[in-house]
Amino acid sequence: MGKLVIVGTVAFDEIESPFGKTDKILGGAATFIGLAASQFEVDSVIVSIVGDDLPQAYLDLLADKNINLDGLEIVQGGKTFYWKGKYHNDLNSRDTLVTELNTLADFNPIVPENYKNSDVVMLGNLHPSVQLSVIEQMAVRPKLIVLDTMNFWMDNALPELIEVIKHIDVITINDEEARQLTGEYSLVAAAAKIQQMGPTYVVIKKGEHGALLFHKEHVFFAPALPLEEVFDPTGAGDTFAGGFTGFLAATNDMSFENMKRAIIHGSALASFCVERFGTERMQHLKKEEVHKRLHQFKALTQFDIELH
Amino acid sequence: MGKLVIVGTVAFDEIESPFGKTDKILGGAATFIGLAASQFEVDSVIVSIVGDDLPQAYLDLLADKNINLDGLEIVQGGKTFYWKGKYHNDLNSRDTLVTELNTLADFNPIVPENYKNSDVVMLGNLHPSVQLSVIEQMAVRPKLIVLDTMNFWMDNALPELIEVIKHIDVITINDEEARQLTGEYSLVAAAAKIQQMGPTYVVIKKGEHGALLFHKEHVFFAPALPLEEVFDPTGAGDTFAGGFTGFLAATNDMSFENMKRAIIHGSALASFCVERFGTERMQHLKKEEVHKRLHQFKALTQFDIELH
Repeated sequence: MGKLVIVGTVAFDEIESPFGKTDKILGGAATFIGLAASQFEVDSVIVSIVGDDLPQAYLDLLADKNINLDGLEIVQGGKTFYWKGKYHNDLNSRDTLVTELNTLADFNPIVPENYKNSDVVMLGNLHPSVQLSVIEQMAVRPKLIVLDTMNFWMDNALPELIEVIKHIDVITINDEEARQLTGEYSLVAAAAKIQQMGPTYVVIKKGEHGALLFHKEHVFFAPALPLEEVFDPTGAGDTFAGGFTGFLAATNDMSFENMKRAIIHGSALASFCVERFGTERMQHLKKEEVHKRLHQFKALTQFDIELH
Repeated sequence: MGKLVIVGTVAFDEIESPFGKTDKILGGAATFIGLAASQFEVDSVIVSIVGDDLPQAYLDLLADKNINLDGLEIVQGGKTFYWKGKYHNDLNSRDTLVTELNTLADFNPIVPENYKNSDVVMLGNLHPSVQLSVIEQMAVRPKLIVLDTMNFWMDNALPELIEVIKHIDVITINDEEARQLTGEYSLVAAAAKIQQMGPTYVVIKKGEHGALLFHKEHVFFAPALPLEEVFDPTGAGDTFAGGFTGFLAATNDMSFENMKRAIIHGSALASFCVERFGTERMQHLKKEEVHKRLHQFKALTQFDIELH
């Protein structure tokens, strides 16, 4: 069974959308990544930090999905990272209302000994120095290192971000961030520039407009499934990343052809995530439901034009 | 050979984009539709109106592509419809600087007798009453009537637009226009509402984000090809429509499966159109180039996930 290291936040989220609002609920990049990856036959570990205010039920929920929590530091008397955000009517933009780093401010990630030979490392959105520290702890160079990041680190820790990017294989980034990082408006040009910075694969996420995978002269596109209702986009990008890396770790095939499949699996899982608030939809997602949705992705994209 | 009636403007366009500016050049919906449709084995006629200020070379250019011009009224002493626009830096939005209707103000479309039994009618963006008049002139109900429209007619001729929509099979419309027409933000919901208004097929164009085809519970998505450089988006939507209808008229198969192929052909042709100003790229487009680009669309979208 492939091993997957997941680094990222385990957090309290509080969300307002046009469809309602939540109390403090379970969130965080590592949480969404882990839940998505748990759809595959993979031995994954979460490396993160929380306070002892995080309900045991949340930890049980992750453990019940066979996600190893040996890398999750619980700070006694500490408080868990907390984010509160409000989505606008179109759900494509949001305001951050509250960010409390709490225990995350002093996060020193520790990869458990047993996972230092993992096949795949998924570096969720965090300070690039924290991401680099995880890479440096690996005893064997993983077959695949995937990094997610955001504009906040381009604004506030660009040198560190550029450093960690040198050491990775795949970056996942949204379209605006790809433009910011490279100064190129064309996503084709931006992806080419990013490949010169380190990663040989560039995934550009376009939200409801799908995702592009660039590798040398190749490009692959996965649409987002058109949905009647999007409830809460929180965690969709992390769920995509979790599906992508979970599939690759489980299949142990890092070829471009298999990455296409991984992108489709990631997109399919992300399409569930947004149907409910927070992790609600992902907690009880059944294999049959995923299978049916993969059929929908095939119907959505496949055509038969005979070319010789 | 399938017959195709094309209704729309033949025009002077004057374009400014971040990449330069043009003089008055050949443009217009019917022009772009006709050039795209000429890639297929189809007997097409343009129904339109121009002044005698339109250079003969422009008419020759269309005739050389075997586009019949018997439905093109040339008003002696009249002036041809003229549009001047300026694209913003991202090319996704533009300002109209000048619109001179000229001869188009009194356009009374006449479908040539020989084309009143055509298989496919492509109603390019025009006043909905003009579009309806063409439908009414057909001696036999065409196998497929496709209509393109825009927000201008929703603002200024909504009752007439709603009337003509009752008589068509396929509408092509952009995402914002679909939302305006239905009051639904979700494109899935918008497409469902539009189908209740008449057309059983709804094509929602999302520009650089591709196009969606809705039919009952089915949905198909064609991405736009990611391009290093987009030069001038003028005519891309019409080129898409021309490729779509040209392919369907040539293959004489109006099934959903064949519409998928038509959408891909339309998308492939549109990806050429934007590479140069105006019709420049489409004038000399070779079959081999189109063939190569269809291969690129396959590589971009096709994956092999085995599902049972």
